[in-house]
Amino acid sequence: MDAMTFVLFGSTGDLAKRKLFPALYNLFLEQKLPQAFSVINLGRKPLSDEEFQAYVEQSLHTFSRRKPEDRSQVEPFLRNFRYLDMDVTKPEGYRELLKRIEEREKELNIPENRMFYLSVAPEFFDVIALNIKESGLGSGRGWKRLIIEKPFGHDLPSARKLNAKLNQAFEEDEIYRIDHYLGKPMVQNLETLIPANPVLKALWSNQYIANIQITASETVGVEERAGYYEGAGAIRDMFQNHMLQLLMMTAMHLPTPVTEQNVRKQKSSLLKSLRPICKTEAARHVVRGQYGAGEIHGQAVPAYRDEPGVDAASMTDTFVAARLWIDEFFWKDVPIYIRTGKRMKEKSTRIVLEFKDRLKEQNADADRMPNLLTIQINPDEKITLQLNGRNPLKNGRMEPVTLDFSVPSDQMPEAYELLLFDALKGDATFFAHWEEVELAWKWVQPLVEAFEENLLPLHVYPAGSFGPAMADALLEEQGFHWWHDETPEARELYKLAAI
Amino acid sequence: MDAMTFVLFGSTGDLAKRKLFPALYNLFLEQKLPQAFSVINLGRKPLSDEEFQAYVEQSLHTFSRRKPEDRSQVEPFLRNFRYLDMDVTKPEGYRELLKRIEEREKELNIPENRMFYLSVAPEFFDVIALNIKESGLGSGRGWKRLIIEKPFGHDLPSARKLNAKLNQAFEEDEIYRIDHYLGKPMVQNLETLIPANPVLKALWSNQYIANIQITASETVGVEERAGYYEGAGAIRDMFQNHMLQLLMMTAMHLPTPVTEQNVRKQKSSLLKSLRPICKTEAARHVVRGQYGAGEIHGQAVPAYRDEPGVDAASMTDTFVAARLWIDEFFWKDVPIYIRTGKRMKEKSTRIVLEFKDRLKEQNADADRMPNLLTIQINPDEKITLQLNGRNPLKNGRMEPVTLDFSVPSDQMPEAYELLLFDALKGDATFFAHWEEVELAWKWVQPLVEAFEENLLPLHVYPAGSFGPAMADALLEEQGFHWWHDETPEARELYKLAAI
Repeated sequence: MDAMTFVLFGSTGDLAKRKLFPALYNLFLEQKLPQAFSVINLGRKPLSDEEFQAYVEQSLHTFSRRKPEDRSQVEPFLRNFRYLDMDVTKPEGYRELLKRIEEREKELNIPENRMFYLSVAPEFFDVIALNIKESGLGSGRGWKRLIIEKPFGHDLPSARKLNAKLNQAFEEDEIYRIDHYLGKPMVQNLETLIPANPVLKALWSNQYIANIQITASETVGVEERAGYYEGAGAIRDMFQNHMLQLLMMTAMHLPTPVTEQNVRKQKSSLLKSLRPICKTEAARHVVRGQYGAGEIHGQAVPAYRDEPGVDAASMTDTFVAARLWIDEFFWKDVPIYIRTGKRMKEKSTRIVLEFKDRLKEQNADADRMPNLLTIQINPDEKITLQLNGRNPLKNGRMEPVTLDFSVPSDQMPEAYELLLFDALKGDATFFAHWEEVELAWKWVQPLVEAFEENLLPLHVYPAGSFGPAMADALLEEQGFHWWHDETPEARELYKLAAI
Repeated sequence: MDAMTFVLFGSTGDLAKRKLFPALYNLFLEQKLPQAFSVINLGRKPLSDEEFQAYVEQSLHTFSRRKPEDRSQVEPFLRNFRYLDMDVTKPEGYRELLKRIEEREKELNIPENRMFYLSVAPEFFDVIALNIKESGLGSGRGWKRLIIEKPFGHDLPSARKLNAKLNQAFEEDEIYRIDHYLGKPMVQNLETLIPANPVLKALWSNQYIANIQITASETVGVEERAGYYEGAGAIRDMFQNHMLQLLMMTAMHLPTPVTEQNVRKQKSSLLKSLRPICKTEAARHVVRGQYGAGEIHGQAVPAYRDEPGVDAASMTDTFVAARLWIDEFFWKDVPIYIRTGKRMKEKSTRIVLEFKDRLKEQNADADRMPNLLTIQINPDEKITLQLNGRNPLKNGRMEPVTLDFSVPSDQMPEAYELLLFDALKGDATFFAHWEEVELAWKWVQPLVEAFEENLLPLHVYPAGSFGPAMADALLEEQGFHWWHDETPEARELYKLAAI
């Protein structure tokens, strides 16, 4: 791995403290950082290097999955950190920054490889990128890379505009757009799960799959993020990026060996095959919801409109469900149901594949359930295959049996560890390429407009529920229902409902 | 369920004590016996009804999976038991027996339904059956059924002769031949596992399956059974019956709804499609072994020839491995490897299906393992699907991950409970039909003769090993190897060996 300088904009912010320093530290402990590296941290507070190092150390004690045992263990890591107080809107700061970077490069005798991580509000992305170019920061004799995280624009035109600006300073292959869902081990697993497993490969098409259900539900509400969320809603915050990425990761048919190029090509091709939903048709395929007052874990919680910072007449979506179709060979006629919401009954991110059962239709066997393959990403990482088996305790009566594989979650690396490691290596497989981002915005744009123009109803659902009842109707049209979770209790409930 | 009389020949023997009384008792507790029933027990010892009931009670305390709590709980069960001391070779005894049965039928006011269970040495099967007929025991106005357990003959001619004699007294559909492997819940599960699960059904053919491996290995030696075993060997004791039954249960493609008729037809059809191995070819497809001295769980154990009751020059097989082919549409070119042995390294009965991996052949990916579906019958009941997944702790390196479904074994009914319950209901699905028995003997007969004529070598293997090395060569010819078990340790060993 190349020695390099990690330039962190927004180093006193929340993401740096909670995710980035712990990720770098864990990579350091696993000897996955370059032998020599320099971390230059930028912020608005006036801090000395020593003060900043103490701040980083504190963040490790609070947020790292491995806690530093004593100063001597953490010191070799911290001594790479320098701090610079600068206003990112002023060109002077960048000249000073360049000086500091070059000094450290000389001191450490490392090449001019520079990784710029913009952990700042999105309105600063273009300013910083342009200043990096203007100041000569990006003209070293090594490589330069830019890491940014969503939002990449708030609609198709703004995303294009932002990207054009970034492209003045960085080539596409120098830009690493983080979608942290792509950093989760189980999501990364999807890349090779199908090509590496002939039994799954055999089943991975409309021949055997009846429908795909992708859920990302949270129990939390908008919290302190109303300022951002009011202008975004679930459609921008979750759907355009994470949910469509999960869909792509699930529906890919990759040739082996799996390469970055193959993944990109497949993802773009899937997005291009996604049947467009025009503005006026949105109401037929999409359900928009907003949480009302309700109960979470027995605790009364307020309606979205009563949350601090939210307009009392807000039409912002905290829930989106949609029915999608991929118009291509493997997925013809397989409905894909996506839903994401806040203040839902369960905290869960998972992909459920429901398999066809042609025989079931012929001889109604009440005890038989569809085969399900569940790839759970949150709260635990788990793969579950639900089959039907005879229960010898019930006279051989058919009932669901589940084959499980769980990953011990306490050992799992965090998404940011995997993503930073890949970016340092220059592997962009698990980052969002501009083509994907643009295609995703293109597909979502009519929905965004339909939402803004109120072309579809806003269903209020009680906090702590499974979302608006209309989201069930989306599936019922094809004779399906949501698989909320695969616990025995949930199954019993479903059975009772079916009687 | 019909009220009936259960007539038990050999009621003071081992099977009755260990399996049959406990099975009846557990069925009784689960209210799976008829409201009114009579158990008439026959033996050579002079015992009163009370003494015999005390003996049964004792057996429940020792061998039942549910222990009787007190006398009041077990008394309503025991009071159905009567004992009669009789010589089964003398006609007089049967007249006395008939009298006792009829008395009890009148007392209990139950119809003349009679279940005859022959828990005696096989040389008495025909004598007893004929006497049941001659004495009028089998001529009541209800149904009559006969339950017997292997050996059904010791070769094809003797099996046919025995069956002809039984048929003088009982129709084929009155004969319930126990193969206790068919009583195991996981084996019974196989009947519906494939038709009830579209994902397995899709994979259940030569299109996806590379080979099938059926193992029944024991760590025990011949124990006190040399008298029987010397004349039988593994080929008769295990292969002709249990192993071929497991093969049939695995390879069936059943239409739904699954019926007794469908199962029988499929099993016979599979046996007819089994490619014959002629006597002179046996050495190419079959490996015969006998255990030498060795170690089991760190304990030195003697060679088979040094076991009590065994001829010092015995040529009896304690191990058989064979490669079989089913010449029909679904299984063309899928080798089926069967092995069974005593004094092996592991105690295990299981079926492993290894899936094809065409891509693997193209790009040698050392870390990738074949997909395996393991149906474990012993020591635990378990279904395991082995896939390849990325290990995020090893930089996303591919390694096997296993999806498991385990049955909590302490709650499992015993094979005899399930079988007796079925026989009482008159359901013969999980019993060996004469057609199967005859076809199995037909297929095995050339091997039996080859063994007797020493047309193939007898490989001595150390006790505590995986059997003769020649058993590995059987698979190597097709480029496969035995999957001994699917524990991580075993996998590590295999990987090392492959390097």
